[in-house]
Amino acid sequence: MSDGVSPVNLANLVLVRHGQSQWNLENRFTGWIDVPLTEQGVAEAHSAGQQIREAGIEFDAAWTSLLKRAIHTLWIVLDEIDAPWLPVHRDWRLNERHYGGLQGLNKAETAAKHGDDQVHIWRRSYDIPPPPLDGDHPDHPRFDRRYAQIPPADLPAAESLKLTLERVMPCWQSQIVPALQSGQRLLVAAHGNSIRAIVKHLDSVSDDEITQLNIPTGMPLAYTLDSEMNVIDRRYLAGEEAAAEAAAAVAAQGRSA
Amino acid sequence: MSDGVSPVNLANLVLVRHGQSQWNLENRFTGWIDVPLTEQGVAEAHSAGQQIREAGIEFDAAWTSLLKRAIHTLWIVLDEIDAPWLPVHRDWRLNERHYGGLQGLNKAETAAKHGDDQVHIWRRSYDIPPPPLDGDHPDHPRFDRRYAQIPPADLPAAESLKLTLERVMPCWQSQIVPALQSGQRLLVAAHGNSIRAIVKHLDSVSDDEITQLNIPTGMPLAYTLDSEMNVIDRRYLAGEEAAAEAAAAVAAQGRSA
Repeated sequence: MSDGVSPVNLANLVLVRHGQSQWNLENRFTGWIDVPLTEQGVAEAHSAGQQIREAGIEFDAAWTSLLKRAIHTLWIVLDEIDAPWLPVHRDWRLNERHYGGLQGLNKAETAAKHGDDQVHIWRRSYDIPPPPLDGDHPDHPRFDRRYAQIPPADLPAAESLKLTLERVMPCWQSQIVPALQSGQRLLVAAHGNSIRAIVKHLDSVSDDEITQLNIPTGMPLAYTLDSEMNVIDRRYLAGEEAAAEAAAAVAAQGRSA
Repeated sequence: MSDGVSPVNLANLVLVRHGQSQWNLENRFTGWIDVPLTEQGVAEAHSAGQQIREAGIEFDAAWTSLLKRAIHTLWIVLDEIDAPWLPVHRDWRLNERHYGGLQGLNKAETAAKHGDDQVHIWRRSYDIPPPPLDGDHPDHPRFDRRYAQIPPADLPAAESLKLTLERVMPCWQSQIVPALQSGQRLLVAAHGNSIRAIVKHLDSVSDDEITQLNIPTGMPLAYTLDSEMNVIDRRYLAGEEAAAEAAAAVAAQGRSA
């Protein structure tokens, strides 16, 4: 992609979902628990960065969450495109879906505690949140100083996908859209469900469909948006087929958060 | 340092100079050329982070330059203190001294081209800049898109230590001081001469003395400042003796930029 007129070169928004984390590997609900990438997750981030470099896409700024698996993914991508100097905005609203009282449990523990059917509902429904963390649970975000500037009432103790979207969208509207409209080209390194929120909005995905839509890890999704945020072009840099295969692998893995 | 009342725990400004870069190793003038850390430089950054962690110092935000040897140092420190989520502000005014036409030359090349006496003057005088880069030299910062938002007239083509200080101070006054005065505790990962600028200001070092003052690499310098930016406490976390030895080693190495 070096002819300078290919649509992919005009991409002004690239979304990257972080790769495998330690708790993905252990098949535990992660949510807002700040677990690191595994070696495989690091390799996925390098691959994402290489794809962006080979596509010749440049950025003016980057956005990420307050969780290290997304931040480290971003750092690796920035190194791969030789742009660690880019301004980086960290926003808690790009965090993964908060998995409430399920955080830390593995699939077997969760099924034993709540039953397979209930777990399926929490994982696949659009608007049913898992059981919340107790307000005095040590994992509650109000005890984490990285969220100290956020009004406690805004901090989730459990989120459905719908609640996640409702928390991501104000960041999208108030921070990311104005930057895009000012002409900036943006890289967003985030999580399965915070990226779903943006994709649902941009691609007008229905509530039902979004629960079935799996964002592949480490596969940059490049949008070309006009000033009204209409989608002019949308493509996985690795190609649709490779992305679909990777998304199917994510789905087969089980949990996406 | 875990008694909670030690002055070091009250440090609200910690300065870290990046460790060895590839061109430090090759003994070439670096300036604004964006060379990476060596393995030794990476190890120095880890050591800096470990010292901060062991001292129990926490931060609310971090500042760095637009050069990867400082940014990578910061990232490593943030990982060591388990705070990659901290807001990071990148500011070109924290860059190293711009070494003009000497950038890329090694000591022998520079001496052959300009003579030992002249090189000594450029390296050790306070206010004599090296020969500037031509305005159309490909290394001129006006051709580097990371500086595209900076008025071209503000971009240096060569700096004396004095000019470096005059460029760092507006960042200090307009960005860092207000953050400190709002109660934030700040980590600054930067370069020998941009850190000299801050130290000269805080410690009221004379023009002559500052040219002789060597900031050791990878050794966090922790200040406790009152709201008027008076120095209440100032210490190298590794101890004054270790810092003095490391500074002497830097001085013996030759160039500090």
